Amino acid sequence: MTAYDPNNIFAKILSGDIPSVKLYEDDDTLAFMDVMPQAPGHLLVIPKQGSRNLLDADPAVLAKLLPVVQKLANAAKEAFEADGVYVAQFNEAAAGQTVFHLHFHVIPRHDGLPLKPHTGGMENVDVLKANAEKIRAAL
Amino acid sequence: MTAYDPNNIFAKILSGDIPSVKLYEDDDTLAFMDVMPQAPGHLLVIPKQGSRNLLDADPAVLAKLLPVVQKLANAAKEAFEADGVYVAQFNEAAAGQTVFHLHFHVIPRHDGLPLKPHTGGMENVDVLKANAEKIRAAL
Repeated sequence: MTAYDPNNIFAKILSGDIPSVKLYEDDDTLAFMDVMPQAPGHLLVIPKQGSRNLLDADPAVLAKLLPVVQKLANAAKEAFEADGVYVAQFNEAAAGQTVFHLHFHVIPRHDGLPLKPHTGGMENVDVLKANAEKIRAAL
Repeated sequence: MTAYDPNNIFAKILSGDIPSVKLYEDDDTLAFMDVMPQAPGHLLVIPKQGSRNLLDADPAVLAKLLPVVQKLANAAKEAFEADGVYVAQFNEAAAGQTVFHLHFHVIPRHDGLPLKPHTGGMENVDVLKANAEKIRAAL
């Protein structure tokens, strides 16, 4: 297992060095909009404690994390009147991981609407902010 | 939200009415082999307490569940000398859910090897048992 790199993008979001469109924050967890959404409302939930991914995380951190993923999944479903919610977590590049700080993807799904590829373009920040406002209102 | 149906397949696995190739069990959680694996070692982790999916689960159940997912993910990675592990959880049919009892998919990934479709065929039970033995040895 490669060691945790504290200079990854999400660590810089946590430190405030890189901006993000935030949805939720508590002592242990941050949720914010994915800048390359696979569907409107695509968000990320991360622990504040650094781990590369699920494999090396502190189980005590994980115990606090999944209830927050649930909270955000319900809010995103309501905010986008979605038919379902896809939750995914990638460990290492072979599984699709591109940022090496543990994160859960939460993506509203609608019947018959395919997801965009994960490597799609950057969304306009005003769109992200408007979508975030809907999710925060549903929290 | 549709109510939890206690006659779903995973509830029957929990009650012993339907067999499964088991990997791990504790007071709150069961892990067993997916019978339609998307890759060798594809396993499922479920809570014993019934909920339709993540959206309606008891947060206290979720707090205990994710550390077990972690344990199985590490074991599956080691057992199959995988390059990564894909963890996914589907809420409602629009997100790909086919059995309506909360479950996490844990799938070993190897560089350059695509996953088989989720609706692929049933794996031979002897293959599942041999793969399960590898994972149990790595737990």
